[in-house]
Amino acid sequence: MRISGKEKISKELTKMGNGVTKQIYNEENPNIEIPVRSLSNVEFDSETKTISLGEQISKRYLFNVAHAKKFMQTMMVASFCKELLDHEVHASIREAYYSLKRTIGDSNENTFDEQKESDPVIVDLEVMLGTLREQLHLNADRSGVAAGEVVIKDRDDTIDMSKLGSGGWSIPSNVEDIDFKKVDAKFVLVAEKNATFDRLNEDKFWKKHDCVLIGAHGQAARGTKRLIHRLHYEANLPVYVFTDADAYGYYIYSVIKSGSINLAHASDDFATPKAKFLGLTMNDIEKYGLQKYTIRANESDLKRTNELKKYPWFKAKEWQEELDLMIKRKIKAEQEALAARHLKFVSDTYLPEKIKNKEFLP
Amino acid sequence: MRISGKEKISKELTKMGNGVTKQIYNEENPNIEIPVRSLSNVEFDSETKTISLGEQISKRYLFNVAHAKKFMQTMMVASFCKELLDHEVHASIREAYYSLKRTIGDSNENTFDEQKESDPVIVDLEVMLGTLREQLHLNADRSGVAAGEVVIKDRDDTIDMSKLGSGGWSIPSNVEDIDFKKVDAKFVLVAEKNATFDRLNEDKFWKKHDCVLIGAHGQAARGTKRLIHRLHYEANLPVYVFTDADAYGYYIYSVIKSGSINLAHASDDFATPKAKFLGLTMNDIEKYGLQKYTIRANESDLKRTNELKKYPWFKAKEWQEELDLMIKRKIKAEQEALAARHLKFVSDTYLPEKIKNKEFLP
Repeated sequence: MRISGKEKISKELTKMGNGVTKQIYNEENPNIEIPVRSLSNVEFDSETKTISLGEQISKRYLFNVAHAKKFMQTMMVASFCKELLDHEVHASIREAYYSLKRTIGDSNENTFDEQKESDPVIVDLEVMLGTLREQLHLNADRSGVAAGEVVIKDRDDTIDMSKLGSGGWSIPSNVEDIDFKKVDAKFVLVAEKNATFDRLNEDKFWKKHDCVLIGAHGQAARGTKRLIHRLHYEANLPVYVFTDADAYGYYIYSVIKSGSINLAHASDDFATPKAKFLGLTMNDIEKYGLQKYTIRANESDLKRTNELKKYPWFKAKEWQEELDLMIKRKIKAEQEALAARHLKFVSDTYLPEKIKNKEFLP
Repeated sequence: MRISGKEKISKELTKMGNGVTKQIYNEENPNIEIPVRSLSNVEFDSETKTISLGEQISKRYLFNVAHAKKFMQTMMVASFCKELLDHEVHASIREAYYSLKRTIGDSNENTFDEQKESDPVIVDLEVMLGTLREQLHLNADRSGVAAGEVVIKDRDDTIDMSKLGSGGWSIPSNVEDIDFKKVDAKFVLVAEKNATFDRLNEDKFWKKHDCVLIGAHGQAARGTKRLIHRLHYEANLPVYVFTDADAYGYYIYSVIKSGSINLAHASDDFATPKAKFLGLTMNDIEKYGLQKYTIRANESDLKRTNELKKYPWFKAKEWQEELDLMIKRKIKAEQEALAARHLKFVSDTYLPEKIKNKEFLP
């Protein structure tokens, strides 16, 4: 079970510290248990349709030459997070690194030499505590933008996402503390590209079709995935994802839907397994007369498409057919290709038709 | 003189078309005049302190094997922009490419084969007409976020930038049509990194110090530069730029201040020559005790620093000293290094001190 809420997490951190203290008083070798995050412990759960972590656990000891530094680092990050929670502030993972970096005593040894040492320790802590980095008050870079028929409360502000002009709400890294005050939307539409977001926002697609529009800006950032997840589970909105017709776009969809290997421990919070893929598909190319606006798939595209074919989360018959078609035709197509029909074709015809006829891939 | 306003630009486009029609009726070789954008025609204007375009003009002819295709492409893009203006819609430069791509008659020749053919034609048009792509209703990708003591009107929405929670306003590609309704800010603070924006936004820096806070997310996008420019000129706000202490950060500053070679024709609209550099500087490292939190500059950093030294817009004594110091010490430092003091050090101490004491580089 996932833990959340500042007090609960703060308590868990204290418990972790107390556990180690107790081991010390008992003259045991201080140690902590961390679920294994290597590929051998990652599986696709065909029931929940998400990528998740298995049961393997490893122990990290203080008195073990191979573990000692990481043990110390884990304690330092845990203590830092406890302070963040107590003081009600957030830090970026880069700030966390700088905050914890120092030279130990008179040695030449640093606590952390590079951020690539602190980042995995943060994930360890996430997994150990069964919580999210965001709930430990650690943030990473943001990307993604939202607009539409939803009113949220964030900090002391009430934000009506239907009144943000051409800009929209810049989705922060951390959306744990926002509340949905009023949801007039019937679904969430996620667009891979911000240019598509701009098109649909200018055409007020979200107004005409009562939805929340999200621009993911490529691979969705954690804050964006978490917002989609929360809109689905807390506001009961179906989620439709709209990407380019290429391996990269399909993978972006799969991460929103099923999670990813790196975040296997957090799929319960980031994945939205009932999300549907709206397009572009290979069949759309004929159906919407885009034959002249495709791009030749190169070797690396085809290699990636073949990799997707092997992922358990692309095993559905419809996806295997789609990927086979792409390999056979050796083409890909972009969302913007729909502009070849006319600029508003995507808003006036393509999306409404697809949604009305429920022409989705699973 | 820069032209703006939909009707004016629409008229200019018509004039351009009429000019060509007239040449055709007069049985002249149809041609258009385009200011030269090559490096030979780019100069640093030491008076305005901006990078600008010289006086060289080239002619593009229809009946010239080397020009014919580009002539046609220029006409197509101009006609497309006229339609955008007439229908009051915007398009991304990628949508523009797809909208104009087609096979000519029974030939195997396409109007455009790749976006890298249409993009420079768009710039040609910008330069020819003395206007901005944005005012031709063409947009590119967005990045950047804003929050603070300013209320804007955008489309039909009134947006109070002090009430956007942890997210902020996602700065669109095109800020031509926004109006500043109420400005309670005393200055604009531009931060290179969104993580710094998040820190300052959480600490409500913009509230305590009455400012507009902008997160540039690295090299500022056109919309972000234009928003900074407009806040400076229309709302009379001084602009302070806060980047990492490295060649990349200093260059980000110089582009905001003086423009860039690629956009030399548009410096009047994008550059903000009175912008000041707030930090980080090499001297800050000692002054604020960050010696242990610097990063070793590698060969490519030093090469870039040496390049900056030669740019006319880095010729001020203070900058030459700063760059020399960087080369001598072979180090760089990040904004987040200030977190090594304590998390809110940047908001509570560093920025207020720098601003109060006017410790800026020119």
